[in-house]
Amino acid sequence: MSIACVGIGPGGGTDMTRRALDALDAADVIVGYSTYVSLIRDAYPHKEFVSTPMRGEVQRCERALELARTGRSVALVCSGDPGIYGMAGLLIELAGRLCPTVEVEVIPGVTAANGGAAILGAPLMHDWCSISLSDLMTPWEVIERRLEAAAAADFCICLYNPSSHGRPHHLRRACDVLLRHLDEGTVCGMARGVGRTDQESIVLSLAELREAQADMTTTVYVGNSQTRVVGGRMVTPRGYVLGDG
Amino acid sequence: MSIACVGIGPGGGTDMTRRALDALDAADVIVGYSTYVSLIRDAYPHKEFVSTPMRGEVQRCERALELARTGRSVALVCSGDPGIYGMAGLLIELAGRLCPTVEVEVIPGVTAANGGAAILGAPLMHDWCSISLSDLMTPWEVIERRLEAAAAADFCICLYNPSSHGRPHHLRRACDVLLRHLDEGTVCGMARGVGRTDQESIVLSLAELREAQADMTTTVYVGNSQTRVVGGRMVTPRGYVLGDG
Repeated sequence: MSIACVGIGPGGGTDMTRRALDALDAADVIVGYSTYVSLIRDAYPHKEFVSTPMRGEVQRCERALELARTGRSVALVCSGDPGIYGMAGLLIELAGRLCPTVEVEVIPGVTAANGGAAILGAPLMHDWCSISLSDLMTPWEVIERRLEAAAAADFCICLYNPSSHGRPHHLRRACDVLLRHLDEGTVCGMARGVGRTDQESIVLSLAELREAQADMTTTVYVGNSQTRVVGGRMVTPRGYVLGDG
Repeated sequence: MSIACVGIGPGGGTDMTRRALDALDAADVIVGYSTYVSLIRDAYPHKEFVSTPMRGEVQRCERALELARTGRSVALVCSGDPGIYGMAGLLIELAGRLCPTVEVEVIPGVTAANGGAAILGAPLMHDWCSISLSDLMTPWEVIERRLEAAAAADFCICLYNPSSHGRPHHLRRACDVLLRHLDEGTVCGMARGVGRTDQESIVLSLAELREAQADMTTTVYVGNSQTRVVGGRMVTPRGYVLGDG
């Protein structure tokens, strides 16, 4: 018995991999958070879907495992990549506890960091850190310590979950931490609704980012000391020598 | 005039996105490093390919831009994601200098970090850093400072370019830096040849990683303080409360 934990990329459209598409084709039933299920449902009118609400992660995985245990072919879908702030870890842990005979296959996808970066230009070309600003399961002190460490060591930074209804000021608080180490003019970027028809992006300074509004579909980029704007796009040079031209 | 900078995923097989496949289908000519071109060449027997040697990155981008400027539809292919240690940044910079009228579209892909993580389990479920151990264009002191910062702030770490002919001992040196902050038993993993027919992975301790052999297709994972082994796989918990069961 097996279950596929499938990354549908940012938006569930053409940024999905062929392996992910094959897994959805092969599944008897597709399980997922309702917003992500809605992104792919139209493509599979005759497929059985089980959608569960936000923050019901444990129940979602348990439901998927129950279905797999009955011998059905199950795909648990995640936005982006299942291994980046997705369901892969929780599903493997719960499978180990509840039904060790069910094998979990993780099918990677394009994560939001990479999808948004492609729209902005090339902000993550050098060493970079991924940090979630959600303090639902991580104390804010841990998040702040990581922001400080990343800025002090001149990493590029990608911020997931910069804002939500419950924590509208987290992005501003994060910028205040970063500004202890980084210049106000540090090149930053935001990408919103990546892979959806209404996707948009903006390049701005760290001082401007502090005043900016993010929502739950926004991914935020903070450049390193070398990041610059090239033709309106955000680019972190890797270090190639290009001459004076 | 435009040029597509296309991520073919790890291995150029079924982990390629539909958008990447569409871009290759649409291209008059496909340009890339010879090893990556060889991964996809067989799928396009009637397509024109231009392959260039390793370390010829500037020339490769210039050649692609020259072809685009003649009005041909060009795809420049990169392994994994073009924005993660790939060609996207260099291509945008050179386009800006040499032919600002050529528009660069970056098509994201599954990067090695995500592809290898999926095989190992879920090592990057919490905040993580991506660090390249190549000191060709980055001083070792900068790399070492980033390793220290990442370990001290309890990030999961993914290491690209852990070894090559010119620097066989970089992985060991990196482990020595990490061991200043991390326990010898820290759960680590290695994935090799991800997406290729001979792909393999291993879960091991940081002390064992220090003695391990990596090659140019290896991606290395160092867990955070919470990372553990679940059914032989490497998993970093996100923090869900699972009860005592």
